[in-house]
Amino acid sequence: MTEKLVLHEYSPSGNCYKIRLVAAHLGAELERREYDILKGETRTPVFLARVNANGRIPVLQLGDRFIPESNAACFYLADGSDLIPADRFGRADMLRWMFFEQYSHEPNVATLRYWLAYVGEAQLTDAQRMQLPGKSEAGYAALKLMDEHLETHDFFVGGRLTLADIALYPYTNMAEEGGLHLAAFPNVRSWLERVASQPGHIKIAG
Amino acid sequence: MTEKLVLHEYSPSGNCYKIRLVAAHLGAELERREYDILKGETRTPVFLARVNANGRIPVLQLGDRFIPESNAACFYLADGSDLIPADRFGRADMLRWMFFEQYSHEPNVATLRYWLAYVGEAQLTDAQRMQLPGKSEAGYAALKLMDEHLETHDFFVGGRLTLADIALYPYTNMAEEGGLHLAAFPNVRSWLERVASQPGHIKIAG
Repeated sequence: MTEKLVLHEYSPSGNCYKIRLVAAHLGAELERREYDILKGETRTPVFLARVNANGRIPVLQLGDRFIPESNAACFYLADGSDLIPADRFGRADMLRWMFFEQYSHEPNVATLRYWLAYVGEAQLTDAQRMQLPGKSEAGYAALKLMDEHLETHDFFVGGRLTLADIALYPYTNMAEEGGLHLAAFPNVRSWLERVASQPGHIKIAG
Repeated sequence: MTEKLVLHEYSPSGNCYKIRLVAAHLGAELERREYDILKGETRTPVFLARVNANGRIPVLQLGDRFIPESNAACFYLADGSDLIPADRFGRADMLRWMFFEQYSHEPNVATLRYWLAYVGEAQLTDAQRMQLPGKSEAGYAALKLMDEHLETHDFFVGGRLTLADIALYPYTNMAEEGGLHLAAFPNVRSWLERVASQPGHIKIAG
């Protein structure tokens, strides 16, 4: 890649960490711009007009083009690399886990962490507080599904590290911050160690 | 494709309709198996063990392999066709809208339709009922974002029909069933007509 890559991010966000992880594995340079989402810095008129009309981070910028949605940005960076399976079924199977992450995992595992460890339980709205038991149950269901799959697989797809692992790693590794415990999921815990031991891996604060 | 393709589905689901739309555009044959999600037919032990441990439809079956997640199944079918942009940025941009659909659109626009038109408001749990105003607001925000993008674009990506349009079409076209009105979104309404007038398009009951 010859274009300069800029990551618009809130660095404690697991969705932003995913993109830094992909870049680290590929040896790609990212310039980082920080926004404090707790202060509404991604909802300003300038951000909405220039970076992402959806008011969310991360956004990957390539020159004057922008890619919102963490998993789409990961796909852009990794397109053509070993992090995306070369076969048709493998590509779809990887995307299956990436859509699972955004639909069944992130809205539960990541939202619980955000609500409890960042916003604070006392600051939640009544509608949010009513959702805590459901999100906890759905978060554990997502972790259980992962654990069952990992019982017979070292990585999610194709026996090697792909974007499926990178998409699922950050919030799974921080699930305890949202009150979800990994004690009952030994295969998930082994997989977290396996992902973290890959060459090129970086920590969230790295 | 020489393998037989089987779609495990609940035919009124927009997520299942997406896959039938892609197959129709590609001229691919799908054998269809129906499950009534209101009767829990995707949560039976056999379904969980054999089709999808996540207990959800749609699932696309290819021989003895299964692809859950509607947008991953669409990607499998369309891989190598004109429905996926041939350039790297276009592919990521298409995925951006597909992840937007599953994260910011479907959980609001589709869930409102499911809760109000299928489950019935009187049958909702308190936690669900408390979410109605938030989901309505977020659903309208998703439609507004689409409308602004479509003000200067005939299709979501690359000036032609791609999986981004197919992913966003079903639930947008049925938004009124969830109480969301399209009157304020003229560009969305024109785009719905444009998508429906493409060669190969089929209706949800088609």
